[in-house]
Amino acid sequence: MKTKPYADLFARVREKRPLVHHITNYVTVNDCANITLCAGGAPVMADAPEEAAEMAAIAGALVLNIGTLNEAQIRSMILAGRMANERGIPIILDPVGAGATRFRTDTAKRLLDELKIAVLKGNAGEIGVMAGVEAVVRGVDSHGLSGDPVMIAGGLARKLGLTVAVSGATDVVTDGKRSLLIDNGHPRMGSISGTGCMAASVTGVFCAVSDDPVAATAAAFAALGLAGERAAAAAHGPLSFKVAMFDELANLTPQDLADGARIRSP
Amino acid sequence: MKTKPYADLFARVREKRPLVHHITNYVTVNDCANITLCAGGAPVMADAPEEAAEMAAIAGALVLNIGTLNEAQIRSMILAGRMANERGIPIILDPVGAGATRFRTDTAKRLLDELKIAVLKGNAGEIGVMAGVEAVVRGVDSHGLSGDPVMIAGGLARKLGLTVAVSGATDVVTDGKRSLLIDNGHPRMGSISGTGCMAASVTGVFCAVSDDPVAATAAAFAALGLAGERAAAAAHGPLSFKVAMFDELANLTPQDLADGARIRSP
Amino acid sequence: MKTKPYADLFARVREKRPLVHHITNYVTVNDCANITLCAGGAPVMADAPEEAAEMAAIAGALVLNIGTLNEAQIRSMILAGRMANERGIPIILDPVGAGATRFRTDTAKRLLDELKIAVLKGNAGEIGVMAGVEAVVRGVDSHGLSGDPVMIAGGLARKLGLTVAVSGATDVVTDGKRSLLIDNGHPRMGSISGTGCMAASVTGVFCAVSDDPVAATAAAFAALGLAGERAAAAAHGPLSFKVAMFDELANLTPQDLADGARIRSP
Repeated sequence: MKTKPYADLFARVREKRPLVHHITNYVTVNDCANITLCAGGAPVMADAPEEAAEMAAIAGALVLNIGTLNEAQIRSMILAGRMANERGIPIILDPVGAGATRFRTDTAKRLLDELKIAVLKGNAGEIGVMAGVEAVVRGVDSHGLSGDPVMIAGGLARKLGLTVAVSGATDVVTDGKRSLLIDNGHPRMGSISGTGCMAASVTGVFCAVSDDPVAATAAAFAALGLAGERAAAAAHGPLSFKVAMFDELANLTPQDLADGARIRSP
Repeated sequence: MKTKPYADLFARVREKRPLVHHITNYVTVNDCANITLCAGGAPVMADAPEEAAEMAAIAGALVLNIGTLNEAQIRSMILAGRMANERGIPIILDPVGAGATRFRTDTAKRLLDELKIAVLKGNAGEIGVMAGVEAVVRGVDSHGLSGDPVMIAGGLARKLGLTVAVSGATDVVTDGKRSLLIDNGHPRMGSISGTGCMAASVTGVFCAVSDDPVAATAAAFAALGLAGERAAAAAHGPLSFKVAMFDELANLTPQDLADGARIRSP
Repeated sequence: MKTKPYADLFARVREKRPLVHHITNYVTVNDCANITLCAGGAPVMADAPEEAAEMAAIAGALVLNIGTLNEAQIRSMILAGRMANERGIPIILDPVGAGATRFRTDTAKRLLDELKIAVLKGNAGEIGVMAGVEAVVRGVDSHGLSGDPVMIAGGLARKLGLTVAVSGATDVVTDGKRSLLIDNGHPRMGSISGTGCMAASVTGVFCAVSDDPVAATAAAFAALGLAGERAAAAAHGPLSFKVAMFDELANLTPQDLADGARIRSP
């Protein structure tokens, strides 16, 4: 598949430096801030109901991540999300741990219900839970999905009217009509905390400069995956890998993405 | 002392990949997540009262760390702790900064009172405060303990009916009947934030696959200490040391632990 | 300018190891803890109203950072701040994102109103907003200030009766009578999240051992900037740079600061 459009998107990211507002968990929030910077965006985090909407109003994208939920944060997500919807700012929802507790499953569903989400991004287990198919989530880890992820994600995308991204050895991105598979990435990415959260942040960065969420999400996954591939070469273990992955993403050029992206149709 | 049993425990960790639920501070939470992964466990963090107990129910161990306490978190600790007690899931309590403020001291005592804790892990000052002996805690740092740590920890362990672990140049682990001293570790471990919190996480990982908390805690301290020793060799300063310590723990094999653990009787 | 006094201050930091209490955001809090250690201080974070004042009472300095504000935290800032004022403990205020939302602007003003702040530290946009001049803040980034930063910061310092520090390629520190410019630093420092927060922490470390906030803040900025310069030499990207900056600050000696500090009058 031609990768030039993804490289062009990446060039636009670097030129525009979009502000990406996050309401996210406190476990990986620093990683989300730094990966946003490395991708070419500008991160901001503000989760108080007093300011969440005002901050969302000036952002290029809004990332909602339910990794360490609480009631005040949910209220802020709704307020910020409504503002984003009013302004046409794309929202990326990462339903971290959906399926592990009722609180997470219910909140993810509520956010999908009350807000117009642009991209729903999760691992196979989380997306399976949202799709109502048999899926196993243990804590925040996916332990598999019974069925074809392209079919399941596509069905969910059509039902909800949004783009669904399923992370995995091969990532799936689909809006139910058009589907893309991304083969970039490295197993080391599963050996550290926060890779999924970071993928949502990078997706926010790319969606902020595009009105094609399928292409933007695929480009984001390819860019992060490519950084992971390059980082793995020199890493001595999970944390030196992590440091290198940030470095490699920051050093990645649009031309590198054009040359290295492995994005294909199913 | 024979180190084979500790190596066997470590092999079991790597095989079972136990889920360790944390209700912990927001300062070192990312370190706790990554060190859990590097040790061979799977971390999850969920501190809302709405889901804390449900998440604890599926975990192999529960780590409670009072490093940045607030009222909602205490409620969640009690709810998650009761569930863990019902299910026989071991709880590790890290009374970070006990003695520095009344709120911390009182909360640590309350958790010990209302929950059946398996392992109480602290620095000399914190454990001294819990034991009611003369001890100096400044912020979250221990500034010493008057008296023999093995005696004091042993007395506290007998009184509370649990295992007490005191971190230090030589770590002490005791249930009041059997005591172990661990000589692994490196002074650099004191030059970064979060080593104590990480030790509690790794203790949770090992306790999740053992019903001998004294041996499991000693194995955890030896494994982390050994990773620290190896990391120190190549480090240029505290943060490159920290990155290397995670890498080394992830790369550590059960055989390495059998060869390198320095665990002895007092 | 003679740099020996700054080196002497740094030697005192290393000798006294001052406790620096932080009430700060959850995005960069781990960086603040580790940079405090690397500078030579001891960090503590406690933001519950139940203990914030008690922890402040034993600290050498108090750092208030509004990066992820909420109502409970503001209450704790006021309680801790009052205690610090009673005890003569210097307070450093970092109005992160002031100007981006009304909540942040109002809170920064309220803290300046209700507490006696020793050092107000921000980027050009944030300080411009506090001074009431034309300034652009987007998220937590400054997008410029119309006017001369030395004049604007000096006027604000005189009006509020405190020291103002403006971070930038050349940092400005002034109490309205005496002004210092610091030329240390490296562009890479802007490529990671948290450099500004870290500068506030290091300022707290130095202010804790000095009763000259202008000199202490200049020394802090020079030390961190020098660490950044040294780190840039070997870095492959933003995150390896960050790791190296912590290492370099920890390895920096008072003599290094005497030799490398570039502090001058305007």
